[in-house]
Amino acid sequence: MARTEIATLGEFGLIEHLTKQISIKNSSTKKGIGDDCAVLDYSGKKTLVTTDLLLEGIHFDLTYMPLKHLGYKSAIVNFSDVYAMNGQPKQITVSLGISKRFSVEDIEEIYSGIQLACDKYGVDLVGGDTTSSLTGLMISITCIGEGEEGKIVYRNTAKNTDLICVSGDLGAAYMGLQLLEREKCVLATSSDVQPDFAGKEYILERQLKPEARKDIIEILAKKNILPTSMIDISDGLSSEIMHICKESNVGCRIYEDKLPIDYVTASMAEEFNMNLATAALNGGEDYELLFTVPLDQYETVSKIPEIRIIGHITEPKFGTLLVTRDGQEFTLKAQGWVHCK
Amino acid sequence: MARTEIATLGEFGLIEHLTKQISIKNSSTKKGIGDDCAVLDYSGKKTLVTTDLLLEGIHFDLTYMPLKHLGYKSAIVNFSDVYAMNGQPKQITVSLGISKRFSVEDIEEIYSGIQLACDKYGVDLVGGDTTSSLTGLMISITCIGEGEEGKIVYRNTAKNTDLICVSGDLGAAYMGLQLLEREKCVLATSSDVQPDFAGKEYILERQLKPEARKDIIEILAKKNILPTSMIDISDGLSSEIMHICKESNVGCRIYEDKLPIDYVTASMAEEFNMNLATAALNGGEDYELLFTVPLDQYETVSKIPEIRIIGHITEPKFGTLLVTRDGQEFTLKAQGWVHCK
Repeated sequence: MARTEIATLGEFGLIEHLTKQISIKNSSTKKGIGDDCAVLDYSGKKTLVTTDLLLEGIHFDLTYMPLKHLGYKSAIVNFSDVYAMNGQPKQITVSLGISKRFSVEDIEEIYSGIQLACDKYGVDLVGGDTTSSLTGLMISITCIGEGEEGKIVYRNTAKNTDLICVSGDLGAAYMGLQLLEREKCVLATSSDVQPDFAGKEYILERQLKPEARKDIIEILAKKNILPTSMIDISDGLSSEIMHICKESNVGCRIYEDKLPIDYVTASMAEEFNMNLATAALNGGEDYELLFTVPLDQYETVSKIPEIRIIGHITEPKFGTLLVTRDGQEFTLKAQGWVHCK
Repeated sequence: MARTEIATLGEFGLIEHLTKQISIKNSSTKKGIGDDCAVLDYSGKKTLVTTDLLLEGIHFDLTYMPLKHLGYKSAIVNFSDVYAMNGQPKQITVSLGISKRFSVEDIEEIYSGIQLACDKYGVDLVGGDTTSSLTGLMISITCIGEGEEGKIVYRNTAKNTDLICVSGDLGAAYMGLQLLEREKCVLATSSDVQPDFAGKEYILERQLKPEARKDIIEILAKKNILPTSMIDISDGLSSEIMHICKESNVGCRIYEDKLPIDYVTASMAEEFNMNLATAALNGGEDYELLFTVPLDQYETVSKIPEIRIIGHITEPKFGTLLVTRDGQEFTLKAQGWVHCK
């Protein structure tokens, strides 16, 4: 039998490869694989479902990630997917695989973080599965939410001339991770030093305790703005805008000087001698919302402090471009998931 | 900080411990943790949600479990939970953690098994997550189904004098596992022998390719029988009837001579010199339905060939009893999940 290495396809390729044969059988399934959430119709309201699997050593490092934060973040990343459909998360199920290394108190810590997130975002924990694992910790969370008929926002509906908007700022979670990794190495070689995190709290919080942008969904609703497309930024801005462009069959122009970046992120990038735009474009784990709105919404959107207009949608023939500060144009590159890098 | 070993609580104790503080916030959440499924109200129909996490080395052994069968079984165990609520599974999400050891073809095999189960049971695969893992394979499936208002059957509503019924037969999947384990040991010590499975196909199929009892739900509906309580048998009959009794605050009498057991299961138990009743009561992975019906349904239920009446519900003070062939009474023992046994 032929053997194709998973690495030759990459994450998106593998998923596409595996799911292309799947057809929809139930009238209650309005949207299956291919967006942040599946959309189901159970009369009246739409049901949104999303799921994430987090594995120790792949998605998190318990050397610096407290278990409570891990629980919190695990829930948040799912809520973020529901908001990215312009929906409201309502329930989650939590499955845990636990090796002997973990105690009851450890699992309580994880649950307390999950519960904190649930309380803050008004979500019920409604089920799950708990089992032993041979090695390490694994967390699988499924989130179910509701969306209103006609107000669910997909990623395949961006239109030429739409404005491209992003909430919050970018690259901070990635720089927080770099900082944590550096301090981990320092601690590994010397036992009498303390990690130096002074003034870096913001980027650490962005990595260790991210939030989902429920507030943005509420602001947009209040201002009567319905995005034409939306996605949450988990794999980096480049990767996500390329999803929108591919699915919507459009191109884009993103302006480097419009990218929202916090000054701690910028100073950390300088300290690490890293390209700041690359961190903002490809860092990932921002959990901000990336969305498009019609051009005639410019006046309204530009006045919302939490939102930045970073570019616009073009005809597909122009490609997906980054315009640098000095006016040069580069084709955006996505840095997706790399199998066992 | 105190350290309590998870083993001191056990699976059910741990879950109870972790979830006792959880309160329900949304009016759409009709039933959270504590049954086979969570019940949600999205106007009109009820939405059922269930999830299972399967880990290599814990739940399955790829030495003898073909990947396609593994995919099939992973889906089936979730469907079974939805049928156990008298519901119909409609959608699943599938999350996979995959180590480098697996190729694209391997993952295709898993998916083809999942898809086969979905096709057979009329279920849509609507989402999921795929990621690399450091070691081994993990499968997390969440199933969403629908149930009709007033027809969802819980496990906490059995009544004194109710008849206790079970579908199919018991202990076969467990004996199939014993056979597979034996042949694995034989093959490990000698390379020039072939596994001897002749005449044992039934118990192998029960272990490697179980089915969910959609047919039983349909038969009961056709005969206008609404069970007073129901659960699926994943951890063994003893464990499941004890769930019903505890949650419903009732006792039970189960008759050993009424337990439905296939002759292949019986002959295998004899060959292995194992107690047959123990295999039927505690073997697990039967994925049959265990349910209670009012006493006045005796005539109707006793005529259904796929269903066996195995005992009756009593007042709680009489306890949960097994009545042996020679008339002795023993208190049933549950053999739940043992942490890293």
